[in-house]
Amino acid sequence: MFEVRTDLAVEENERITKAQEEAKGITVTEEDFEEEQIHITTVRITTENGAKQMGKPKGTYITLEAAEMIEDDEDYHREISKRLAEILKELIPVEDSGKRGVQRGVGSQSREDSENIERKSSTHFAEVNQNIDKKEEIGTSILVAGLGNRLVTPDALGPQVADNLYITRHIIKEFGRRAYENEQVQPISAIVPGVMAQTGMESQEIIAGIIHEVQPDYLIVVDALAARSVRRLGRTIQITDTGIYPGSGVGNHRYSITKETTGIPVIAIGIPTVVEAATIVYDSMSTLIDELAHAESLQPLKRSWGKLTEAEHRNLIRELLSPQLNHMFVTPKDIDAEIKRMSYTISEAINQAFCG
Amino acid sequence: MFEVRTDLAVEENERITKAQEEAKGITVTEEDFEEEQIHITTVRITTENGAKQMGKPKGTYITLEAAEMIEDDEDYHREISKRLAEILKELIPVEDSGKRGVQRGVGSQSREDSENIERKSSTHFAEVNQNIDKKEEIGTSILVAGLGNRLVTPDALGPQVADNLYITRHIIKEFGRRAYENEQVQPISAIVPGVMAQTGMESQEIIAGIIHEVQPDYLIVVDALAARSVRRLGRTIQITDTGIYPGSGVGNHRYSITKETTGIPVIAIGIPTVVEAATIVYDSMSTLIDELAHAESLQPLKRSWGKLTEAEHRNLIRELLSPQLNHMFVTPKDIDAEIKRMSYTISEAINQAFCG
Amino acid sequence: MFEVRTDLAVEENERITKAQEEAKGITVTEEDFEEEQIHITTVRITTENGAKQMGKPKGTYITLEAAEMIEDDEDYHREISKRLAEILKELIPVEDSGKRGVQRGVGSQSREDSENIERKSSTHFAEVNQNIDKKEEIGTSILVAGLGNRLVTPDALGPQVADNLYITRHIIKEFGRRAYENEQVQPISAIVPGVMAQTGMESQEIIAGIIHEVQPDYLIVVDALAARSVRRLGRTIQITDTGIYPGSGVGNHRYSITKETTGIPVIAIGIPTVVEAATIVYDSMSTLIDELAHAESLQPLKRSWGKLTEAEHRNLIRELLSPQLNHMFVTPKDIDAEIKRMSYTISEAINQAFCG
Amino acid sequence: MFEVRTDLAVEENERITKAQEEAKGITVTEEDFEEEQIHITTVRITTENGAKQMGKPKGTYITLEAAEMIEDDEDYHREISKRLAEILKELIPVEDSGKRGVQRGVGSQSREDSENIERKSSTHFAEVNQNIDKKEEIGTSILVAGLGNRLVTPDALGPQVADNLYITRHIIKEFGRRAYENEQVQPISAIVPGVMAQTGMESQEIIAGIIHEVQPDYLIVVDALAARSVRRLGRTIQITDTGIYPGSGVGNHRYSITKETTGIPVIAIGIPTVVEAATIVYDSMSTLIDELAHAESLQPLKRSWGKLTEAEHRNLIRELLSPQLNHMFVTPKDIDAEIKRMSYTISEAINQAFCG
Repeated sequence: MFEVRTDLAVEENERITKAQEEAKGITVTEEDFEEEQIHITTVRITTENGAKQMGKPKGTYITLEAAEMIEDDEDYHREISKRLAEILKELIPVEDSGKRGVQRGVGSQSREDSENIERKSSTHFAEVNQNIDKKEEIGTSILVAGLGNRLVTPDALGPQVADNLYITRHIIKEFGRRAYENEQVQPISAIVPGVMAQTGMESQEIIAGIIHEVQPDYLIVVDALAARSVRRLGRTIQITDTGIYPGSGVGNHRYSITKETTGIPVIAIGIPTVVEAATIVYDSMSTLIDELAHAESLQPLKRSWGKLTEAEHRNLIRELLSPQLNHMFVTPKDIDAEIKRMSYTISEAINQAFCG
Repeated sequence: MFEVRTDLAVEENERITKAQEEAKGITVTEEDFEEEQIHITTVRITTENGAKQMGKPKGTYITLEAAEMIEDDEDYHREISKRLAEILKELIPVEDSGKRGVQRGVGSQSREDSENIERKSSTHFAEVNQNIDKKEEIGTSILVAGLGNRLVTPDALGPQVADNLYITRHIIKEFGRRAYENEQVQPISAIVPGVMAQTGMESQEIIAGIIHEVQPDYLIVVDALAARSVRRLGRTIQITDTGIYPGSGVGNHRYSITKETTGIPVIAIGIPTVVEAATIVYDSMSTLIDELAHAESLQPLKRSWGKLTEAEHRNLIRELLSPQLNHMFVTPKDIDAEIKRMSYTISEAINQAFCG
Repeated sequence: MFEVRTDLAVEENERITKAQEEAKGITVTEEDFEEEQIHITTVRITTENGAKQMGKPKGTYITLEAAEMIEDDEDYHREISKRLAEILKELIPVEDSGKRGVQRGVGSQSREDSENIERKSSTHFAEVNQNIDKKEEIGTSILVAGLGNRLVTPDALGPQVADNLYITRHIIKEFGRRAYENEQVQPISAIVPGVMAQTGMESQEIIAGIIHEVQPDYLIVVDALAARSVRRLGRTIQITDTGIYPGSGVGNHRYSITKETTGIPVIAIGIPTVVEAATIVYDSMSTLIDELAHAESLQPLKRSWGKLTEAEHRNLIRELLSPQLNHMFVTPKDIDAEIKRMSYTISEAINQAFCG
Repeated sequence: MFEVRTDLAVEENERITKAQEEAKGITVTEEDFEEEQIHITTVRITTENGAKQMGKPKGTYITLEAAEMIEDDEDYHREISKRLAEILKELIPVEDSGKRGVQRGVGSQSREDSENIERKSSTHFAEVNQNIDKKEEIGTSILVAGLGNRLVTPDALGPQVADNLYITRHIIKEFGRRAYENEQVQPISAIVPGVMAQTGMESQEIIAGIIHEVQPDYLIVVDALAARSVRRLGRTIQITDTGIYPGSGVGNHRYSITKETTGIPVIAIGIPTVVEAATIVYDSMSTLIDELAHAESLQPLKRSWGKLTEAEHRNLIRELLSPQLNHMFVTPKDIDAEIKRMSYTISEAINQAFCG
């Protein structure tokens, strides 16, 4: 049977009422940042009952929606990166170095600044004491996995985020955080595991193996998602502390990547980049039938249609769906440029949160 | 008002009846190649009246349809390349060199063979007499323009075709066709003009300028097209001797590239790589309404719907279309791999037709 | 015979003495910008005699040398872009619009600013009066040609510069300069002509054709060059108003691109990205022989070597050069990152000079 | 002190005499394949004494040299792939399935054939019995690691090989070898670990982690190497069963990847793609001095030079080496095309050896 697919919790939430929420161990809070036109919804599922009701595991699901995010407005994106960085810092409480280097304001945390860190630090290597033995000197180690297929544009979000991260683990491992002017820098590592057709392995297998060897404290996975509504493409960022589940993502992961399968906390960041073609047709037709049933001149239809069961409605629509649509995606015309832009928004947020 | 867009003549033809055709200076012939599962439709518009009726200029429109073209079957593609090469040779009658080198069968004209030509010839350069003054020694000069945006996957067909052509003009210009073992090689040149946002110029301006300077005998333009039906994506090749018209192509050309604007005959080769998202929704809804009207249990609807005019039907559907769909394309999930494969099918056809 | 190759005038100048200069219609001026560590040498060849002496046509040859340019220091590059923009503005006196929009300081002319221009202007299109008929409203039209092979890293400088330009011609042609908040914006167009093996045409043919059709006022050509000394790789920018000559560039142009061949003034911008491998060996061996001849313990050698003629010296070295070296380049290990960085330095300079 | 660097055993061997060999637990065998112009040298180090003498661990070092490999001759490369496949099959004895499917000759094992395997097999999936529990049904699992930096052309050999492998592990894991018509297919997986600046991790850490999780039977590592002589660039393939050692490779690995560090046998395949610039200068100067000393007219030099010690010779040369040369590579002018071609030669060899 046709199933409308979405990877976005916020799209599934739409059917839960406020009353239901509280009764069932689900809390929803909303925040509006008017100047930046950012809307943040936080869904917390705190009981097994709530998890069952939502069809999702216990945990925190944060959705950041930005009306104009899709537009090419560098300053605005900086604001999104800043909010996302704040969310990440709440989800990943990092080890304080006990010392502060040159303090730098968040406003200046642009890509250029990340580059400045690197340059300044490299001149410090020689002077750095190599006696690194305390957690305080090493910080909180974070592995970022950029999921998806680098060669398929709408699935390339994760790999492109990984490409633009400010990587520090190898430096800190050798010289300690004192190698950096700002000693709040955390050790960041990154991997692009590729997709199964390229590697013969599940992303989960590759990541679990690396975690076993490298022993990071946290895993951040970044992935391109499928949404139900074209309205959300490139306008929504979903952050959750529950990891990634089978069937999600543009490339359809088969294994879960969670605390249970990796042994460490997993923060998942996703942006919807496609809608399955069948979904937009299904939705349009549902709306059409609804409209027809309400049209003044179509009162007889309203009655006929009303005689059909919900299941009959679904069957009728499903039969009309071209099987070819199953292999089709709907994407924005400028998806290549958008993926590039959105990947910077995410990589800058991670850079700010842990190397800012 | 919403207009269903298609760049494919074969999709527009669907409404013309056989009787109408003959009356109006339109002839349609069809050929089936069962073994290869290729179907070729040739529409010839021979009078102004026919042109008016079809909404297209006088000329020949050839559509090559291959059910399985989209699949990754190298041998089959070779067959499509072979048919396409034959069509190109009919549309572009080339200059015979009067001599024959080592004759090579069509069956061996794969990509590897093209590379063999180059290698053999390069060892011949030294011996070649440089006294080149006769048309017979130079052949029929063909410029291939790969239209579209290299950086936007579904629009990159033209640039990728240009990348894989066997380029000979510079060699023949210096050493004559005797530089090649097969002296039927024609002088081929190629340009990727880019898109207006990259160059500030229309493709037509760039191509016209180059033609003025380089004086080729023929222009072949290759472009990615928009189709009306997802069923045609990657399964149809359109070849026409009328060139390219404003509004066509994934990137929406604004100026025409025709014999009138360039001064030389223009052969256009196009493959549909996208459907506008609004189109699939429109089509699905039209079908739904049709089905509803025929459903046993919906006889009253049939009557109500029947009372609405055609225009009212269109309006109702149009209102339901999300404006966001205007910026959306429907593409196959593996569009990156398909563009690569289809570009080889076309480049090999051109290589075989003029350098085989 | 072995010829040490260089595309840099400043490397050829090294043998000209001050006295010779003035006598022969050659003037050399030097400027030092200490804070930015930039050294600018301007050679003006004003007479045919001087041209003969220098082995270069009459014109202005400006060399901008920056000790640290090769390092990844974003701020410093901004200073180089600023100096280069000033040089370009002197060589290309542009048409003033007669009006000034929001004036913006040079200090803010970063890549982000260029993007801001675009965004602001796009909201103005609707209000713009389309009656564009005066030169004042159109400005000075500049075509930028990014020479070289996009697929060969050290030769990709020109194409990458073209990719990052702020393109305005198509907007100004339709809406006039009033479309931009800063009405000093000039109409910029760009072309990446590719190399002969890809196109079958000389870059010069393609560019001349486009100039014929599009009628720009100035041509800027950007190209990767071969230097004689590895010390200059990525540290020198050469700007000249005499265009490009046969044999120059990493890709070895065969035709000149000059005012004579294109009909409009040609400004050439080049950065050395390779040294021919044979050159570094030749130079090292020359130095060795020189050293040997001076070594205290090698007095007899000094006399023996002294008995050989200059030609005998050259012959001896030439015989030792491996013929394989002819197909080899010397490039920095991180040439991919450097080309990217240097291309931004140039594209930003052009953006600032004509769209700032 | 200046050290001439080479990753090629065959270049180090040049100083070992035949007599020395046998005495020291080193055996050298040579084979010539005249038709294909391939020369294969096999060095076996069998004792600790031999290992000490050679400065390399015990094991087998095979060098495949092909005079014309660098040229664009597709058929010839196929022969190299075939020989390399034979070598790999000797080093990795695979599990026989006990059954034979459609036997296919080696001559047809081209890239197209690999693709055919995939297509045929995919139609078989449905019928395949999923009860897979015996080693015989799973085969010998091989992980291929493509070392190096995808974005730095001469270092991209490994990643490009991985991109073109025929990946089977995920299919065999799910359906057994019966999924393939040729049941001798082995389960192949692949990883591109990236370089430390991109990941913050050593390649060795990533690979060891994946091996821990995925448990392959063998590891093949593919890497671009540094040679001493430009004559070897792209003309030599080195295969060894001792893995990879610190300091080797274009990107200079810091940790070893061997049976000791990974727990499974490691086959390393390398092709030299660069020579350090200082090396060619050093070599040329050594030759020059040698020549000078022999020149008829320079008898006095011979004597003076002879009075200097070997160390004084080295010092003299070293002082002449420009320190900038340390950051320079010598590469062929068409390195981009060569890397692509050589990566196919290796990936086809692996495809033939284990999926042919």
